Amino acid sequence: MHEPNNLIDKVVSLCKRRGFVYPGSEIYGGLANSWDYGPLGVELKNNIKNLWWKMFVHDRDDMVGLDAALIMNPKVWEASGHIKNFSDPLVECKKCHLRFRADHVNEVKDRNAGMTAMDFVSLPDDEKSILVCKDSKTNEHEWTETKVFNLMLKTHLGPSEEKTNEVYFRPETAQAIFVQFKNILGTSRMKPPFGVAQIGKAFRNEITPGNFIFRTREFEQMEIEYFIPAPTIDADWQKTFEEWKDAMWAWIDALGISRANVEAVEISDTDRAFYSKRTIDFEYKYPFGQKELYGLAYRTDYDLAQHEKFSGENLHYKDVNTGEDYLPHVIEPSLGVDRSFLAVLLDAYHEEGEGDKQRVVLKLKPVLAPYKVAVFPLLKNKPELVEKAREIYTMLAHSTSSGHAIGPIAWDDRGNIGKRYYAQDEIGTPYCVTVDFDTLEKGMVTVRDRDTMAQESVQITDLRTYLNERVS
Amino acid sequence: MHEPNNLIDKVVSLCKRRGFVYPGSEIYGGLANSWDYGPLGVELKNNIKNLWWKMFVHDRDDMVGLDAALIMNPKVWEASGHIKNFSDPLVECKKCHLRFRADHVNEVKDRNAGMTAMDFVSLPDDEKSILVCKDSKTNEHEWTETKVFNLMLKTHLGPSEEKTNEVYFRPETAQAIFVQFKNILGTSRMKPPFGVAQIGKAFRNEITPGNFIFRTREFEQMEIEYFIPAPTIDADWQKTFEEWKDAMWAWIDALGISRANVEAVEISDTDRAFYSKRTIDFEYKYPFGQKELYGLAYRTDYDLAQHEKFSGENLHYKDVNTGEDYLPHVIEPSLGVDRSFLAVLLDAYHEEGEGDKQRVVLKLKPVLAPYKVAVFPLLKNKPELVEKAREIYTMLAHSTSSGHAIGPIAWDDRGNIGKRYYAQDEIGTPYCVTVDFDTLEKGMVTVRDRDTMAQESVQITDLRTYLNERVS
Repeated sequence: MHEPNNLIDKVVSLCKRRGFVYPGSEIYGGLANSWDYGPLGVELKNNIKNLWWKMFVHDRDDMVGLDAALIMNPKVWEASGHIKNFSDPLVECKKCHLRFRADHVNEVKDRNAGMTAMDFVSLPDDEKSILVCKDSKTNEHEWTETKVFNLMLKTHLGPSEEKTNEVYFRPETAQAIFVQFKNILGTSRMKPPFGVAQIGKAFRNEITPGNFIFRTREFEQMEIEYFIPAPTIDADWQKTFEEWKDAMWAWIDALGISRANVEAVEISDTDRAFYSKRTIDFEYKYPFGQKELYGLAYRTDYDLAQHEKFSGENLHYKDVNTGEDYLPHVIEPSLGVDRSFLAVLLDAYHEEGEGDKQRVVLKLKPVLAPYKVAVFPLLKNKPELVEKAREIYTMLAHSTSSGHAIGPIAWDDRGNIGKRYYAQDEIGTPYCVTVDFDTLEKGMVTVRDRDTMAQESVQITDLRTYLNERVS
Repeated sequence: MHEPNNLIDKVVSLCKRRGFVYPGSEIYGGLANSWDYGPLGVELKNNIKNLWWKMFVHDRDDMVGLDAALIMNPKVWEASGHIKNFSDPLVECKKCHLRFRADHVNEVKDRNAGMTAMDFVSLPDDEKSILVCKDSKTNEHEWTETKVFNLMLKTHLGPSEEKTNEVYFRPETAQAIFVQFKNILGTSRMKPPFGVAQIGKAFRNEITPGNFIFRTREFEQMEIEYFIPAPTIDADWQKTFEEWKDAMWAWIDALGISRANVEAVEISDTDRAFYSKRTIDFEYKYPFGQKELYGLAYRTDYDLAQHEKFSGENLHYKDVNTGEDYLPHVIEPSLGVDRSFLAVLLDAYHEEGEGDKQRVVLKLKPVLAPYKVAVFPLLKNKPELVEKAREIYTMLAHSTSSGHAIGPIAWDDRGNIGKRYYAQDEIGTPYCVTVDFDTLEKGMVTVRDRDTMAQESVQITDLRTYLNERVS
């Protein structure tokens, strides 16, 4: 197997090899760009979600959470416009029956116009298939007219596949927040400005999923609907919008993603959803192009107004003391968990050194790293070293009366120390603790820093504090 | 509205009123027994999931995690037997077209045999509808023969609803662990005995969902597949089975559920799945009957053998050093998140006192409580009290250089102290801190214990430590 030579291939390979992300259903030949998060991946993913919840729910006084069902009453999607408008343009070849997004076909054609036979050979398979019809008689597709194809995944609840039992898996988490707005208002005592946060799965029947975990049919979102009093002048919503723009940059910093790799792109009047007065896409410079990472939109009172209209319920905020009575407006920061995961890995991935000193290192922020610390006995065949190392591992991994656990701790007693460092660098473990003869004689361990590779002697009695200061 | 008079109605009412659980899609008339977790519910639910992950993944050295896609290759469900066998017996009335689980119809008939007209009026609606046909000519249903109805939710991936695009939403999380067993073995360096844990949604198209969040079509599981070397004698697996039985009781203790409300029921040879050599159901004494909370099953090597057969992949564990080569056997602790949530609330719910002293108190373990502490200024109209209370709230709610946050903290400055205690007791907040004139003069706050209602004066400088010792 040859070494992958571009960043995305290297990251996909690392993910598979070290247990971050596996192809979904792989022993059965996979399933349409689906992916499973392995032992290290689930830790990194949970760390991203927990950090987000801490930053945007627990550390703020103006936010509460929600965790709604994935399947909602289909009227929700009538009100939101998803049944009517949430669709892609689709064409089908009348001869070979290949189906593709109409705009994607044109894009591929334009890009590859004037191509030679050699150029053609080097094209990715999906581009080849758009350019050449598999029908034996001719190489030219005969495309149908463009048809509209709804992107929601449909199923049936109840014991028959009748139209009346049709329901959809939510294509976004946001709508649940609007649908439960009245209940949240009535039970949480919040008053605008305040926000509701939700993390959960959403589903879109993408015609062409791809680019690893960037675009999948099943994905996870972290969304906030931030409700503000109905603005009287633009400055009223613009101030909050700017605050959320800053908060999203702060989140990008918290993930350890370099701001240089992200561009905040103003979406023009013509490209914005009709109900939005301002939208910014935070685009990440992925190896396969600059593409959307997060979105921030001022959605006016469009959503609540639609749900008032379709449900017949009054969704106004009313203050019995002040007499205020208005339909709140909404600012929506919308974030993808899987895209965050990918951007974090791409940004953290570094190759350093040469020859024997060559290493791959994931410079993950300690709060995100699957393991906070690794513990090694210098030699595997010295029981007194192994026993002492095990003792230190246990002290750091488990909470006791003398202190809290540092977090998940790795253990490695195989091969030489250099190989163990290499293995831990590759998965982003911030510190390695080696137990050697100095430990037995002087109670000192060697702590090695992932990023600087500097080594320091630390007293066992100081070790918990030393590490806690650096990883939490 | 009259006060509900039985425990389940009281808990459902509390959940709605205080923001633990709302009916799903309520403004659109709901959707088939679906439920959304509100601001307090999402905190309690996350606390349950996080505690489980800590106990069974982070605090053990023999466990790793997985987070797999909800939609898998359909061959997975051929191998597991779900396409063929995962079904309920269904009957339909030929006249009114009501559909019901055949066994449920008989159960209702038996239970209500010899009923009077008055008895009939007091029946729940779903029981009434089974007993009386809506067809105008007669009151007797005319049931069809029993048909078999598959319980998996089906959808289509890709731009057409052809048979080849049919996929299912997983009816259990377990199979993903078997399907990724080879990848996990290859990347995690684990060796049996070791386990894989997963938390995630699963879906079953139940014909008669009900009993609040006990049986819903969409639910969340916490499952472990614990892989052991192929046993040579029964004692080999029996030992591990007993250890997991103990671990499940320890988990029930950790949730604060009284062991007296749970019965470990041995499933007899005739009722067990054919591949299982031993199964225990942990049944909780719900107000609507003693029903399954958790399951523990020894599944032999059935699952891995099936996936070897259907995928053609070798799923043996091989040790290059010792030459061992075997198909691991599996012990499966299977837990429901929503059922845990319900059992926790039912067990924690207490009504105490009389007259003015009457209160509802959720005696939740602090680790599960949505808020760890509430902070009150004694009087709302004394700015110096409010300011001091706000300072203490901030100290406890947010991490600073002087210490970690205690966790989510509630704030209340409305009504009298008695009402505020009542409101916090009802949502299970373990401690209330009141800032009064002693705080300004002597730096003392009053800390009130939820369960004992005892009040204690605590120095502000000791407060964080005092509370940390009690809530974490």
